[in-house]
Amino acid sequence: MSGGLGPPIRTRPIHEGRIVNLRESDYLRPDGTVVTREVMDHPGAVVMVPVDGDHVLMVRQPREAVEAFTLELPAGKLDHAGEDPLACAQRELAEEVGRAAAVWRDLGGFWTAPAILTEFIHCFAATDLTPVDGAQGDEDEMIEVVPWPLADLGALIDEVRDAKTLIGLMRLERELRGR
Amino acid sequence: MSGGLGPPIRTRPIHEGRIVNLRESDYLRPDGTVVTREVMDHPGAVVMVPVDGDHVLMVRQPREAVEAFTLELPAGKLDHAGEDPLACAQRELAEEVGRAAAVWRDLGGFWTAPAILTEFIHCFAATDLTPVDGAQGDEDEMIEVVPWPLADLGALIDEVRDAKTLIGLMRLERELRGR
Repeated sequence: MSGGLGPPIRTRPIHEGRIVNLRESDYLRPDGTVVTREVMDHPGAVVMVPVDGDHVLMVRQPREAVEAFTLELPAGKLDHAGEDPLACAQRELAEEVGRAAAVWRDLGGFWTAPAILTEFIHCFAATDLTPVDGAQGDEDEMIEVVPWPLADLGALIDEVRDAKTLIGLMRLERELRGR
Repeated sequence: MSGGLGPPIRTRPIHEGRIVNLRESDYLRPDGTVVTREVMDHPGAVVMVPVDGDHVLMVRQPREAVEAFTLELPAGKLDHAGEDPLACAQRELAEEVGRAAAVWRDLGGFWTAPAILTEFIHCFAATDLTPVDGAQGDEDEMIEVVPWPLADLGALIDEVRDAKTLIGLMRLERELRGR
């Protein structure tokens, strides 16, 4: 389905950023041609679908890049490229919505933008939730927790405008109806 | 749902790239604090869900950034930030899969990665397809058209690893089952 393609044969660093590093790399195609691509390196991320009784726990936060407050599933960046995604998800769930989950299920991951960004997002369902005292987050995150009734899941999917959140919520909807 | 947030009060350009431009900007929060964000500017994009009889038309192509050949819905970048998304979708459908569509339906758009990237992707269903002679694309794109039976749409959704493609296919699946 998604066959392999080799690593770059040459790389020129362009910029070391706060979240992504930018580079220009040359790749050898199977047909022998060489193509140059601008690539943003990202350590990877997690998105969680936390179901608390008959609600899914959403977060509303300011997203300056798109100049909007957005409604999203809780999510977070891996501390480093090798971090265990589940450990990251557990930490971020505590920080963003103040919950621990007894049951975690891997819903399958995906690339955010495979033409330009290395980011792979691991998607987990989190259930059997209990409150924990871990909510803190980065001080400038301004995150508000928004419990949303599962009975209105379709309306939520129609409203949300964040890619990873749409995928997590539509995966949840498929599970709830048995696909 | 997604309330507004003001434009940056200061911007420092970092890098002008092939696809994205990188900048660092300061934003004034509603509470009066100022936050600094690294932002990648992108003109926006389209993704198409082309249904040809009882198949959805997919494309397989090398995505060097993630070092894989990926199976995706046809998609493309706006020529400039103000381009009409439907006109872009019509051009890209001809270039990538050699089809024109008599019927276009807006399935709703989304931000790719609202924490770091301005890209908004417009998603269209394209039906009543006819062949056109427009297939050319960029010469280094190496795109293979893969018709996929709608009867196996669930298996396709389980396999695909590209965010915009997952969203387009799950929106199609919801429509086919009447939500």
